[in-house]
Amino acid sequence: MTAAILRPVYLSDDGQILHLLDQRRLPQEETWLQLCDIESVAQAIESLAVRGAPAIACAAALGFAAATHTFPREPERFIQACHIGLERLAKTRPTAVNLFVALQQISSALPVHISDKTVQHLIETVHGIAVRHVEADLAACLTMSRYGETLLPANATVLTHCNTGALATAGWGTALGVIRQAHALGRGIRVLVDETRPVLQGARLTAWELVRDGIPAEVITDSMAGMLMAQGEVDVVIVGADRIARNGDVANKIGTYSLAVLCHYHHIPFYVAAPWTTIDLNLRNGQEIPIEERNLEEIHFHGGQRMTPPGVGARNPAFDITPAELVTSIITDRGIFTPHEIAAQPNSLR
Amino acid sequence: MTAAILRPVYLSDDGQILHLLDQRRLPQEETWLQLCDIESVAQAIESLAVRGAPAIACAAALGFAAATHTFPREPERFIQACHIGLERLAKTRPTAVNLFVALQQISSALPVHISDKTVQHLIETVHGIAVRHVEADLAACLTMSRYGETLLPANATVLTHCNTGALATAGWGTALGVIRQAHALGRGIRVLVDETRPVLQGARLTAWELVRDGIPAEVITDSMAGMLMAQGEVDVVIVGADRIARNGDVANKIGTYSLAVLCHYHHIPFYVAAPWTTIDLNLRNGQEIPIEERNLEEIHFHGGQRMTPPGVGARNPAFDITPAELVTSIITDRGIFTPHEIAAQPNSLR
Repeated sequence: MTAAILRPVYLSDDGQILHLLDQRRLPQEETWLQLCDIESVAQAIESLAVRGAPAIACAAALGFAAATHTFPREPERFIQACHIGLERLAKTRPTAVNLFVALQQISSALPVHISDKTVQHLIETVHGIAVRHVEADLAACLTMSRYGETLLPANATVLTHCNTGALATAGWGTALGVIRQAHALGRGIRVLVDETRPVLQGARLTAWELVRDGIPAEVITDSMAGMLMAQGEVDVVIVGADRIARNGDVANKIGTYSLAVLCHYHHIPFYVAAPWTTIDLNLRNGQEIPIEERNLEEIHFHGGQRMTPPGVGARNPAFDITPAELVTSIITDRGIFTPHEIAAQPNSLR
Repeated sequence: MTAAILRPVYLSDDGQILHLLDQRRLPQEETWLQLCDIESVAQAIESLAVRGAPAIACAAALGFAAATHTFPREPERFIQACHIGLERLAKTRPTAVNLFVALQQISSALPVHISDKTVQHLIETVHGIAVRHVEADLAACLTMSRYGETLLPANATVLTHCNTGALATAGWGTALGVIRQAHALGRGIRVLVDETRPVLQGARLTAWELVRDGIPAEVITDSMAGMLMAQGEVDVVIVGADRIARNGDVANKIGTYSLAVLCHYHHIPFYVAAPWTTIDLNLRNGQEIPIEERNLEEIHFHGGQRMTPPGVGARNPAFDITPAELVTSIITDRGIFTPHEIAAQPNSLR
């Protein structure tokens, strides 16, 4: 099965080049970027060439590993370059926790002082950490998909938001991985895809993945979900997460909260699928999750054309917070939990 | 005050040409179409050169009046052309009731047989009916605005959906007319404008009208309303209506129903502003209102560029139904009513 999995970020065999599928140009063009320095990787993340909480972390980790080959070979300056590089990558996007998890994994491996001999060793260490991060993410996706697909009734119509598929992860996907797994098992799944304004991750990326896999899918505007629920056309909603506070509050793509309220009103299960590492133990609740405000051009322009009149303002929060009480279950690679069960996990399990 | 009102549809002095502001090209270009035959008017309505329930009716009535000048002068053939013209216009868009009200007003004035002498008289009669329809619509807008503005608290942030302004009516507007009136009275109103996918009537048209009037406004994606409500940033939601069933169920632009559910959850007043004639006594409830399904290209394309991959399906219902129980009040030119009061109106008042 693994052979067929799309991997949107991977390293060249010599570990010096990050290959990255440029998601800004999908579905029109399948263009791969080749990046080998920190600034290029950072800008690829900021400009959404790669997006999706787990994929951002994978790109940052692999990109950092590739960039170490360009760092000065003098030990003190090498370490200094590492710290500057990690800081730069940490500033790219604030909301998804996975990025910080990956950077912390690398940071922890950096000694305060190293000798000449160990620079090469450190490059190899960082490479190993990055690759293991990516493989762990893929494994988590596959595991949570197997847990999650049991929640989807046969012939269910599943509504999803944004892109949580192979493109958003090391491969396979979180929420879309669950859908993909149910389809692979012949469950007769049908998907309604929120187009997900302003960046259209649903219309462009999720639709592209579903067509590739031959999963029946229809794109809808974000404003149609309520009506379709009222008409009984939605059996389940499943979304991903960029960060989950320890009380079970979920930060995810803007529009997720509205969907959760609509599910609550229509008595439709609302599932979140995310690797366990998405849970941020440092945060008591969703109010503490930083929400990225993106460029207002994303609101003013459609398909490269300005649609709003000069002089009007706009808002562009990229994420919102769905409180734990609106989440039916959280599907993780450790199993399926209610938000309450997540909150009640003993620290030893964390 | 009337002098400053934008009139998006009007007849030339000789009554033979319909002037129509092309809303497809706003806000980039202010282009006026000049139409004088039935087919051109019908296509302008179908292609959304003019949209908004009351404005469609005004364009159809005035356009029909202009087109009568092109009909055969032989009486029987003139009457026949009238019926064919009315039928064509009735087929343009199914959901808004105002169109059918206007066409019925004209149809009622057509005799079964007329003599040669009365063709010119009939042309004048139709002209009079059309002009009175438009003037009545403008008067209704101004009246409902004065009623409605009393519902908006000082310094309120009002969220609105689609375009319900001068462009959607004979002038001034329904829901946006209420906002405009509150602003004119110095109430310190601030507006959040749902961009209103797929046709972007909010981002393009409502934003354009608000900038023209100097009313502070910010465009948001349709998916942001819930988050902003949760943050306490929305005091009131006010929308228009394309048709109201006699039990108070409201058909309006797709996304209205989701907003109403979100208002219910957040205890925010949800107001509908529409002329009394929007209430369709023939329909018991919203389930009987026909919902237009529009071309799927509107979903697949953004700013002229295809965004979805080949092979994916789409949905495009142009309207949804908000049940009466989610509507706080309906603002009309006869006053402000709860949906229950509308349903309880004695037939004599209808």
